[in-house]
Amino acid sequence: MKRSFIREILESIDESTISFAGGLPNENLFPTKDLKKAANKVLDESKVFQYGLSNGIKSLREKIALEYTKEGFETSSDEILITTGSQQAMYIIAKYFESKDITIEEPSYLGAMNIFRLNHLNMNPIKLEYDGVVIDEFEKSFKANKLAYLIPDFQNPYTSTYSDEKREQIANLIKKYNGILIEDSPYTQLYFDKKTKSISSQIPNNSFHLGSFSKTLSPSLRIGWIRASKKLLDSLMIIKESIDLHSCGISQYILNEYLNDEIRYKNHLQTIRDDYKNKALFFCEMLDKYLPNFIYEKPKGGMFIYGRFENIDTFNLVQKCIKEKVVFVPGNQFYIDKKPNGEIRFNFTHSSFKEIEKGIKLIKNCI
Amino acid sequence: MKRSFIREILESIDESTISFAGGLPNENLFPTKDLKKAANKVLDESKVFQYGLSNGIKSLREKIALEYTKEGFETSSDEILITTGSQQAMYIIAKYFESKDITIEEPSYLGAMNIFRLNHLNMNPIKLEYDGVVIDEFEKSFKANKLAYLIPDFQNPYTSTYSDEKREQIANLIKKYNGILIEDSPYTQLYFDKKTKSISSQIPNNSFHLGSFSKTLSPSLRIGWIRASKKLLDSLMIIKESIDLHSCGISQYILNEYLNDEIRYKNHLQTIRDDYKNKALFFCEMLDKYLPNFIYEKPKGGMFIYGRFENIDTFNLVQKCIKEKVVFVPGNQFYIDKKPNGEIRFNFTHSSFKEIEKGIKLIKNCI
Repeated sequence: MKRSFIREILESIDESTISFAGGLPNENLFPTKDLKKAANKVLDESKVFQYGLSNGIKSLREKIALEYTKEGFETSSDEILITTGSQQAMYIIAKYFESKDITIEEPSYLGAMNIFRLNHLNMNPIKLEYDGVVIDEFEKSFKANKLAYLIPDFQNPYTSTYSDEKREQIANLIKKYNGILIEDSPYTQLYFDKKTKSISSQIPNNSFHLGSFSKTLSPSLRIGWIRASKKLLDSLMIIKESIDLHSCGISQYILNEYLNDEIRYKNHLQTIRDDYKNKALFFCEMLDKYLPNFIYEKPKGGMFIYGRFENIDTFNLVQKCIKEKVVFVPGNQFYIDKKPNGEIRFNFTHSSFKEIEKGIKLIKNCI
Repeated sequence: MKRSFIREILESIDESTISFAGGLPNENLFPTKDLKKAANKVLDESKVFQYGLSNGIKSLREKIALEYTKEGFETSSDEILITTGSQQAMYIIAKYFESKDITIEEPSYLGAMNIFRLNHLNMNPIKLEYDGVVIDEFEKSFKANKLAYLIPDFQNPYTSTYSDEKREQIANLIKKYNGILIEDSPYTQLYFDKKTKSISSQIPNNSFHLGSFSKTLSPSLRIGWIRASKKLLDSLMIIKESIDLHSCGISQYILNEYLNDEIRYKNHLQTIRDDYKNKALFFCEMLDKYLPNFIYEKPKGGMFIYGRFENIDTFNLVQKCIKEKVVFVPGNQFYIDKKPNGEIRFNFTHSSFKEIEKGIKLIKNCI
């Protein structure tokens, strides 16, 4: 099995290459001062440096639970499991469902597909449209395997956001067949105008809802979580423990302290949303100007733009582009069979406005 | 599969119970001030908060590699993989060897046994003596499965430390059959008088050598590592990436900064060794005084004392003891079949001198 194309690219290119490839947040927006202040407040206590609970420190779980409850999705701290990024959340759940069949969107998140392969899950892909999966196809698949992995908000890579209708239809199907939904939601807070409502909130006992602080605060903290019924979470504990005993305590305490100032965090989130929205709009403008044959839908949030050329093999194109010092992820990477196609995923959050224009021009010259 | 007895106990007892059960370091010795100082030095830079390399930050890998090289075990930074505690190191390697047969010591580390079970490895246990496994039995097993998991330094739980002769014999057998040794070494730095030499240094291309900062600096950092040939490490990368992309960056940068002052770290290690040696001696004194029928060997380092009663079922005993507010781990937990026996593992690092005496008296009263 091969490593992720994206991770390999990220580790091989140098700083002179403009990268639309990764999913890096804009590092100029990290609240470094406030996180440092939080660190200074907590790093005196010896308990911060000792072994901790496998499911994470209680006050942090309480804060995360409260956010759900405030939005009408009642949740207690026992229904939260802190994980080492939502990547680990995915891994733990996949390990739990080892060797099972699973319904996924196509295209889908590379990292999740690698996790499923590693844990011998048999993936059944369902065509994704910009407003969610095709429902009939979903039902046919889910009826058989009773397990689905979806990214309903600003999907990676496809940028699709499920319509309210499709959310309800999916929730009803999951109830009908009494199956399980793994709802991956790392981008939910990165909406441009309107917050979406999770599918899990309609099926609290039949879902794992995954969240992360990687896109909103700092990926380096490696703090994500799973929201699920206590019964479902309990069945994951032996795996969580075996993988790393518990997630980094230093990170958890710093984060917990930072989150004590709710208004500051809310303002910070708004700053990111405004910045990313501006970046996305500018990226679209540049695409329309320099690559008018690129067909795509404007994203409503998240970190990516996804679209396609009619007659270009983008896996070939990216090899040329890398030599010209610009890189993106060719869409075939997000499919199970990896057959060449004309699709591309662009990340718009990490590059400056200047780099965006320059990078898109460089791609134009490679076509 | 059940969760770890130790983790469950740690999470269920209250603060009024004297615990000889866990493997908690003495938290009074955490260098909180120096770690906080290190945090203050690094938490201004935005790169500290961004995604990082899957194998860990380079300067930290270089420092760990240098320590090996200084001791005559030549190692480069490419031969180090940073993991989320050495627990994760074990998990990654076990996942890589999924469903294989493996030679292990008996008794052995509970966490590792759980990891092996979870990854469907078939464990073949070899009787452990205080100077290492019985060599003939080891050869018979290793010849067949070519994969072994050993804790040669101050073993958990047995406290055994391999003699130089046995280390050489094991290394020769691993070469002879061209197999792989997983050498787990979290306690190596906690020697009382004499540092041991790893088996891996004699077979650098046939071994994974696992280390950790959890016992020497702080478990909350969740930073451990694997030392192996680049070829072996490369084969683990897809698993490491899938599990958590990379280990906590904040921890790595703080740790890396802390380690810049080599002399301070060396002094800190000596402080721990002195403290633990005193604690161990006192614990042995109290055992001899109050529980003269407890047969054990004085440890030469590490965090535990291991021994046995002739005619007591210690799994029954611990249930009584928990009610009297003292707890230890009954030895049967460290065996594959968990048949009741008279063995006990005591942790001596976390309790105060007063608690040690009080706790042992409480146990005496339960017998």
